[in-house]
Amino acid sequence: MAASQKPLSPRSKNDLAKNARSTSRATIGVFDSGVGGLTVLRALLDRIPNVDYLYFGDTARLPYGSKSAATVAHYAVGAVQYLQAQGADLLVIACNTATALALDEIKAAAGVPVIGVVEPGAEAAAAASRNHKVVVIGTEATISSHAYRRALEGRKVTVREKACPLFVPLVEEGWAEHPVTEQVAKIYLSEAFADDAGDSDADVLVLGCTHYPLIKPLLRRVAPEHIAIVDSAESTAQAVARQLHVEPVESGRRDLPALKFFATDSAEKFRTMGTRFLGLPVRDVLHVDLKE
Amino acid sequence: MAASQKPLSPRSKNDLAKNARSTSRATIGVFDSGVGGLTVLRALLDRIPNVDYLYFGDTARLPYGSKSAATVAHYAVGAVQYLQAQGADLLVIACNTATALALDEIKAAAGVPVIGVVEPGAEAAAAASRNHKVVVIGTEATISSHAYRRALEGRKVTVREKACPLFVPLVEEGWAEHPVTEQVAKIYLSEAFADDAGDSDADVLVLGCTHYPLIKPLLRRVAPEHIAIVDSAESTAQAVARQLHVEPVESGRRDLPALKFFATDSAEKFRTMGTRFLGLPVRDVLHVDLKE
Repeated sequence: MAASQKPLSPRSKNDLAKNARSTSRATIGVFDSGVGGLTVLRALLDRIPNVDYLYFGDTARLPYGSKSAATVAHYAVGAVQYLQAQGADLLVIACNTATALALDEIKAAAGVPVIGVVEPGAEAAAAASRNHKVVVIGTEATISSHAYRRALEGRKVTVREKACPLFVPLVEEGWAEHPVTEQVAKIYLSEAFADDAGDSDADVLVLGCTHYPLIKPLLRRVAPEHIAIVDSAESTAQAVARQLHVEPVESGRRDLPALKFFATDSAEKFRTMGTRFLGLPVRDVLHVDLKE
Repeated sequence: MAASQKPLSPRSKNDLAKNARSTSRATIGVFDSGVGGLTVLRALLDRIPNVDYLYFGDTARLPYGSKSAATVAHYAVGAVQYLQAQGADLLVIACNTATALALDEIKAAAGVPVIGVVEPGAEAAAAASRNHKVVVIGTEATISSHAYRRALEGRKVTVREKACPLFVPLVEEGWAEHPVTEQVAKIYLSEAFADDAGDSDADVLVLGCTHYPLIKPLLRRVAPEHIAIVDSAESTAQAVARQLHVEPVESGRRDLPALKFFATDSAEKFRTMGTRFLGLPVRDVLHVDLKE
């Protein structure tokens, strides 16, 4: 592969926190199998504007969901090593599948702090649920991995998991506010919140997929009113801010950080699709060829 | 990889045709990136029951649509060489992407006749269209390849291409007869048959994706009545029958051929999903690991 494979020297949390506050800016590397993780980058930009960002989308090898844990770990480690070689001081694994299947391997291979999307989402859901009952929605792969179930049950929360395989293609079709998506959401959520015993009292819905923030307004309309929606992307941004000891951003004070994107498939395709997911123009995209 | 890479000695069409008619049965190898090609196998079983079949689904490496032509060719050649090593006398490339991007490479690497899905579909569409105007629907990858456009324009047929990216996930969700799918089909087809000049007179709809035969009854209801539907899977089965000089099957006379399946991802998953696509029980599935 193109990037250097040598282990990088670990940097302490204090260095990072200092960089995030000082003029020597920290650089956060965000990794996903595609463009979905740009919703996590968006949440990071809103929460932590005073650092720089690198984003790696392994678009040529997606989806990770159908691949073995060993393959996913191999791909993810290659990508995060590339991000480190480009200067990332902290890594955010914005891919649910890579987090579920390979977070330990990524942490072992990385010389810098690594934060995945599952634990922050589970932590926020556990804190938000009065009844300690939560519904998690995600792709077939994320739901089958039971990563959220494990993280939530470890926090004494009862979990119902529901795969919603049509949401990703609906979002990618650009139908985030389409009547068809609303109809599909009604079907999925009524199944997710149905309870055979007739006393479903889950009070939190976890968006366990990086595509779902784009249909959050629609889900808010369709979900029962008393349900709190926990967005893993936002929870992850909050976890990163805590790690960096970043204070909440004053409104009005918004330096736009440097943004640099790497994609393993077409840079043009990444720019077009990425702009929709980030909600900001995606410009500086470099095509990267990571050998198998 | 596990399969022998040595070139196999070519066999003549006459040998094949003899095998298809005689007691020494011919073996047809069907290749697809996933389970979709099972609709092509189904059409072959209906049309040519007196041969045996091998089916290879490269489920661990799908979808091919986002991969480069070189990668698709490399994967497809590995798979068809595996099928040949297992005894295939004729190869059917039941994958639109592999046909569009790599048919020549596959033919060059194979020592036996190779038939893809695009040419037979285009041929049938050209024959069926009185107005020489045809609409082709398929995945984003197939439509972007313009393989059907080239094949049809070569036959003096005007083509309108329309990507329908939601059909595959809707079929995979098991919603082949669902109201949501009907609503999506109405939207897609009204776009496909809309004409800015106000005089759309396309009279043929080509199903350019192996998943679409499962929603053919629904598309028949939704499409304008005068539109003929050409199913690439059926057209391909007819092309194979012509190549083998097979007579139309007498109704009632149905030996069930030997069926053997190979999948690069979970055999269990292939059995479950495959049964829906084939419309027959998928039993004898072997997991195969083709190295990159």
